[in-house]
Amino acid sequence: MQCGSFELLKKSTQCGARLGRLHTTRGVVDTPVFMPVGTQGSVKSISTEQIRDTKAQIILANSYHIYLRPGLEIIKKAGGIQKFNSWNGPMLTDSGGFQIFSLNSFRKINSEGVEFRSHIDGSKHFLSPEISMKIQKAIGADIIMCFDECTPYPSTFEYAKNSMLLSLEWAKRCKDEFYNDDSKNTQALFGIVQGSIFKDLRKESALKMRDMDFVGYAVGGVSVGESKEEMMNVVEATVPYLPENKARYLMGVGMPEDIWNSVERGIDMFDCVIPTRNGRNGQAFTSTGKVNIKNGEYKEKFEPLDPECDCQACRGYTKAYLNHLFRSQEILALTLLSLHNIHFMIKLTDKIKKALETDTFLEAKKEFFTKYYSNK
Amino acid sequence: MQCGSFELLKKSTQCGARLGRLHTTRGVVDTPVFMPVGTQGSVKSISTEQIRDTKAQIILANSYHIYLRPGLEIIKKAGGIQKFNSWNGPMLTDSGGFQIFSLNSFRKINSEGVEFRSHIDGSKHFLSPEISMKIQKAIGADIIMCFDECTPYPSTFEYAKNSMLLSLEWAKRCKDEFYNDDSKNTQALFGIVQGSIFKDLRKESALKMRDMDFVGYAVGGVSVGESKEEMMNVVEATVPYLPENKARYLMGVGMPEDIWNSVERGIDMFDCVIPTRNGRNGQAFTSTGKVNIKNGEYKEKFEPLDPECDCQACRGYTKAYLNHLFRSQEILALTLLSLHNIHFMIKLTDKIKKALETDTFLEAKKEFFTKYYSNK
Repeated sequence: MQCGSFELLKKSTQCGARLGRLHTTRGVVDTPVFMPVGTQGSVKSISTEQIRDTKAQIILANSYHIYLRPGLEIIKKAGGIQKFNSWNGPMLTDSGGFQIFSLNSFRKINSEGVEFRSHIDGSKHFLSPEISMKIQKAIGADIIMCFDECTPYPSTFEYAKNSMLLSLEWAKRCKDEFYNDDSKNTQALFGIVQGSIFKDLRKESALKMRDMDFVGYAVGGVSVGESKEEMMNVVEATVPYLPENKARYLMGVGMPEDIWNSVERGIDMFDCVIPTRNGRNGQAFTSTGKVNIKNGEYKEKFEPLDPECDCQACRGYTKAYLNHLFRSQEILALTLLSLHNIHFMIKLTDKIKKALETDTFLEAKKEFFTKYYSNK
Repeated sequence: MQCGSFELLKKSTQCGARLGRLHTTRGVVDTPVFMPVGTQGSVKSISTEQIRDTKAQIILANSYHIYLRPGLEIIKKAGGIQKFNSWNGPMLTDSGGFQIFSLNSFRKINSEGVEFRSHIDGSKHFLSPEISMKIQKAIGADIIMCFDECTPYPSTFEYAKNSMLLSLEWAKRCKDEFYNDDSKNTQALFGIVQGSIFKDLRKESALKMRDMDFVGYAVGGVSVGESKEEMMNVVEATVPYLPENKARYLMGVGMPEDIWNSVERGIDMFDCVIPTRNGRNGQAFTSTGKVNIKNGEYKEKFEPLDPECDCQACRGYTKAYLNHLFRSQEILALTLLSLHNIHFMIKLTDKIKKALETDTFLEAKKEFFTKYYSNK
């Protein structure tokens, strides 16, 4: 089956939520799915064995980071990113665009592409749709993304429109470059809808992307500073114009509430650094809400972080011990909380899938949030 | 069986090496044994599950650190250190003396005890033989150590003699304090031989300690700056005066060569932070010698760190990937190399035990070092 193809298994009768299967060269991914982010090829502070233990099905890597370090030569010699990091399972790479826009104060954009400086050594580089395709082919993830401009927030309607049109132009060039060799037999290229928070632009972008017939579609340019309400408006303004038989990926999202709300509106795929980043800062997601384990109140709480969780942190330790590890600046604390948070997100999508099987999405959502907000 | 009691299973006909079993409240420990150090209750950067995976049989914790943070109240409420850190197996605590002498520039020592300042917040504390016993009882490790003065190196004969005599006096007070309640039913108190590098002092200390009839004995005041030759001289000057039917523990040692050389001279137990500390710095022990994985030469070495090792780092990754993780400042790098080094030390003692079973210690030692130094 074509890598990236989407099998729609079941639609909720209550809302836009759907149960599906994403087929990739390295395995089948059940959707809705949360993809942990392995920025530099590795999910921060967590080993590949530990990631497998969370039952994550697919992980993400950032082309920008891997292109700069270790560089494509090493990835090629290793036999691709999945062999290099020993994951050997489904992976997705972004185009590098988002990092150029978020990490680089120095960048020059024109219709050809973007010139930028490495955040590591300040060296100059140039990225274009064609170069991004070459990079992502060399990295070798199962699913790769079009190179686009992640429209900043806020933007004027005019800036957002021109930016969206440029991304469309670039999407065409990405497609031409992607399909010029055999990579298409093992990789899938997804298109990205832009248009900032403007409904008309989102619709236009979605329809034109749809005409270009990508294997799957992403909603980009979200989680860039807009409100949660604006984010959901963007999803609602986009999803209806995307084909039903293809996967829909909301980039860089999100928090537990974002996932429930977006699945409800027809999104199938998510990625986000929050579970690992917040974990490293001591914040855990639990079935009864967020916990900042560094708080003094947990010093003598000899109970698991989340009694409903069976991750390594919850099955092995108490809140008091995790608090001690953080206060003692032990690296293990960062690992355990990151691991827990990823586990939490995977379990969350498991709950969603189970509810969709029995067509009880809204009931499951209500149940989840009644408990999640019970400590407020 | 009395906690801390030693069962001598077999003596080498070639040298002083011996195969034994150390009985503790929480399990039997096969000797010679290497004990990973969990300074603050946790072996740095490694989870309890990962430590179990290395087949470590007993771990060490530092009373000084645990006394200062999280403090005894929390440890007591948790039900002891083994429950707090979820290890639930044999543990050993040191007395706190070594840390006071190594971490504190401000300290006042008199025959009563030592006044020192916390390295965390500068607060004043006082430690004495009696207080150290109380602390170690509260922490609740299976084996606890006498509070002594770790004689600095170098010291004059006179300083070393007075220091050794003070430690003897303190050992008597430790014993009195230790045996005044039921702790003796679940914990064992080991005496520590001091005397710096002076053979006569080591002999005197060993004989007087022996007269005091401790459950086990440690050789302390080594690995403090003296040469390897001096360290072995100390071992040779001490071991003959220790009883054969009790465990002998060389504190704070060591490197692979130290372990082989000390076992050869009759030592049964070791602890050392080098495997984890060096691991965090990128240095790995392997069957063919030391490897600094950060070196550029490993960038494109797509082979395991040590083909003879089956730890998580070696079974999952290549040198090239570990090099990438270090260069990318990924925390996972520190964890993987620490894990590998501990695994290496445990495997090393396994090799030694196997050789002792077949009375081929010297042959095994030669084989080990021929390979270990083959890359020089």
